[in-house]
Amino acid sequence: MSTMLLSHAGILTFENGDWKYIPEGYLGINGDTIDYVGEEIPKNTYDTEKNMSGKLLMPGLINCHSHAPMVLLRGVGSDLALQDWLFNKVFPIEDKLTPSIMKAGYELAVLEMLASGTTSFTDMYMLPEIACEVVGAAGMRCNVARIMQEFVPGTSYEANGRGAEQAALFDKYNNTFDGRVRIDYSIHAEYTSQPELNAQYAKECKERGACMHLHLSETKKEHQECIDKYGKTPAEWFNDLGVFDNPTLAAHCVWVSDSDLEILKEKGVTPVHNPTSNMKLGSGFAPIQKMLDMGINTALGTDGAASNNNVNMFEEMHIASIIHNGYTGDPEIMKAGTVLKMATLNGAKAQQRFDIGNLQKGMKADVIAIDLEQPHLFPNLDAAALVVYAAQGSDVCMTMVNGKILYENGVYLTMDKERIMASAKDAVSELYN
Amino acid sequence: MSTMLLSHAGILTFENGDWKYIPEGYLGINGDTIDYVGEEIPKNTYDTEKNMSGKLLMPGLINCHSHAPMVLLRGVGSDLALQDWLFNKVFPIEDKLTPSIMKAGYELAVLEMLASGTTSFTDMYMLPEIACEVVGAAGMRCNVARIMQEFVPGTSYEANGRGAEQAALFDKYNNTFDGRVRIDYSIHAEYTSQPELNAQYAKECKERGACMHLHLSETKKEHQECIDKYGKTPAEWFNDLGVFDNPTLAAHCVWVSDSDLEILKEKGVTPVHNPTSNMKLGSGFAPIQKMLDMGINTALGTDGAASNNNVNMFEEMHIASIIHNGYTGDPEIMKAGTVLKMATLNGAKAQQRFDIGNLQKGMKADVIAIDLEQPHLFPNLDAAALVVYAAQGSDVCMTMVNGKILYENGVYLTMDKERIMASAKDAVSELYN
Repeated sequence: MSTMLLSHAGILTFENGDWKYIPEGYLGINGDTIDYVGEEIPKNTYDTEKNMSGKLLMPGLINCHSHAPMVLLRGVGSDLALQDWLFNKVFPIEDKLTPSIMKAGYELAVLEMLASGTTSFTDMYMLPEIACEVVGAAGMRCNVARIMQEFVPGTSYEANGRGAEQAALFDKYNNTFDGRVRIDYSIHAEYTSQPELNAQYAKECKERGACMHLHLSETKKEHQECIDKYGKTPAEWFNDLGVFDNPTLAAHCVWVSDSDLEILKEKGVTPVHNPTSNMKLGSGFAPIQKMLDMGINTALGTDGAASNNNVNMFEEMHIASIIHNGYTGDPEIMKAGTVLKMATLNGAKAQQRFDIGNLQKGMKADVIAIDLEQPHLFPNLDAAALVVYAAQGSDVCMTMVNGKILYENGVYLTMDKERIMASAKDAVSELYN
Repeated sequence: MSTMLLSHAGILTFENGDWKYIPEGYLGINGDTIDYVGEEIPKNTYDTEKNMSGKLLMPGLINCHSHAPMVLLRGVGSDLALQDWLFNKVFPIEDKLTPSIMKAGYELAVLEMLASGTTSFTDMYMLPEIACEVVGAAGMRCNVARIMQEFVPGTSYEANGRGAEQAALFDKYNNTFDGRVRIDYSIHAEYTSQPELNAQYAKECKERGACMHLHLSETKKEHQECIDKYGKTPAEWFNDLGVFDNPTLAAHCVWVSDSDLEILKEKGVTPVHNPTSNMKLGSGFAPIQKMLDMGINTALGTDGAASNNNVNMFEEMHIASIIHNGYTGDPEIMKAGTVLKMATLNGAKAQQRFDIGNLQKGMKADVIAIDLEQPHLFPNLDAAALVVYAAQGSDVCMTMVNGKILYENGVYLTMDKERIMASAKDAVSELYN
């Protein structure tokens, strides 16, 4: 296996419960794994040395809730009310999605994510095989899920059909591409699913040891309507069906109650905060501070680009770090380091990937570099604050996954940007003309 | 005078009360002035033609509230409560500011602003002569003001001394550098000033036809304490002193009452919204929707980088466009076009510069270009939404002021980035060591 030393770099790493910044350090990589992080020159020799002077190395960002191909719906029906936007704009376009359009969408999203420092993501959408192939070929990491929905009460598990599809998908793709691609189970949400099917799906998820990914109490309306219909909150309802007996990522959690939070904590569910989407769609402020105070693992996601309008985790970190201060009137609530952990280590835990999310010896080499030699990143008095409050996604000058550089200084090493942009143009012509 | 045609560009311009997007158009420049905007090739001939295919042209952004040299305090005391941050971190560092440090600060800020598409700003800080010289030499536009403060009641106007200094500053620098540099008057805030001095200062501001720039009701505490002390809100207090008889920029206006808003409307005061700072410091949500509904001219600003932590107006637009939806639960409250107007035309009006803020024949050529050929800016279904929700400051590939290109593709045409970065390093060493 080839070895590489990233030398003379600033290194931001999580150690002993907090972020530590090494102003000038060394990060050694053996194959796909970090074998050294420190201030001293390592004793090992490396095949190649890459001088990273003026750069800050940090763990790759983990986007725990996305619908990647929706980058093709970027800007659709902006500024409309939720229902109008969803039913009159988004759904009619989604009806026109074909495999070739979907491939263009997944590829366009991966280009954007790599350029803005995301190294792993958890996605739920359609045609998951395409996601697996695109992510696999790109060298990125993803937990892929096909959404299960069922609008007709009483539909049998067989008639719904998702269970069998999902089993086949799992058998074919789980833990493929050196483990970079994993298969999650996904139930869209309470209001788009049926209890018996969810119970069965959750059971099969558990048999396979997969993660579960769903939307939970995103809007006040859906939260209240569930209580009206079932006499339970969505969290109680899912929990009673055994869904949370799996490692679960619950996107949004804006309207969860205090007792819901107790359930999430007890079951080890990860709420995934999507601040841009929650703000833009007017969904509200998730009780992040309560989650953090309770020690609930809380992660970050972009949601789909149709409601964001990008998949840039730097913006997500920034917005997450400030809005809760504004909402509560307390500037000490969300600290930069807390948000950075949500976007890295907490995300890794949510994905059940315990070997990413930090820069430590023995972990997979998912590393991004930020070009510090720019006016807006000087001075670097507090590296975590610089990354969260001052940096932009475009400040990422290198993105590495599993020890392999995928993106550097605007150039993609594993993807053909020109071909993909051309495919995306064709896809957009098909969708909107 | 030399003439230039920007050809084959997307052009975003405000016409007949709304933003209009020309997918492929032409923008002609004669000296410092736009002489053509349209879809057709103009009949005039131009000395040079610059092919801007794949780029979007839009008006330069106008930052209506900044303390530019505070870029040197970027990241100081992040995540602290306001009073602790201000009194124990910011003020002791500001005490160490020297002319050479201030020059480095102004220059560093101008580098950052130009690279992220700001062409004009309204600043209040210290050593304003340095601001004038830096901005003048850089080719940028700025309304400069030295802050007046007075903590000791009964101090005479002469003993405070700011009036005479300001008169000399005005005489020397107002309307210099081809009118790019103007001198504003500035009273820091109600809680840091004395009524008699403010009345006199306002009178002298009016005699000179200058703008007034102040902080207004940023925090609940300052708003309430003014009522307790004077029996008036800060807006009532300033108005009764004649301060609003000048074209006034009132930064923050988070806690203004409904009757305060009536005063601002009647007096033509421009509230300047600083969403990042208001969120980060936990100040709260300014009643922007009420302001807009009442037809009050409302602009945007970054505030100082110590509470932001940058001077990037793209982030300001983005955050302004989403947080009010989240706060009110109404996704239709802040539309992309409204926010874009706040950052351009409304800012121009606040600065009393009626020849910038839009791309129209006869206006000064303050133009920025966005590089659309990037994955995160595709598709461009709605240009205003793309700029506000999806773009980053770094997507600016050209910044032009008064018909002169100041920044293009990472290169500064009028400023020596290396020298300035070296000066900034020296300044930071002095400040923090």
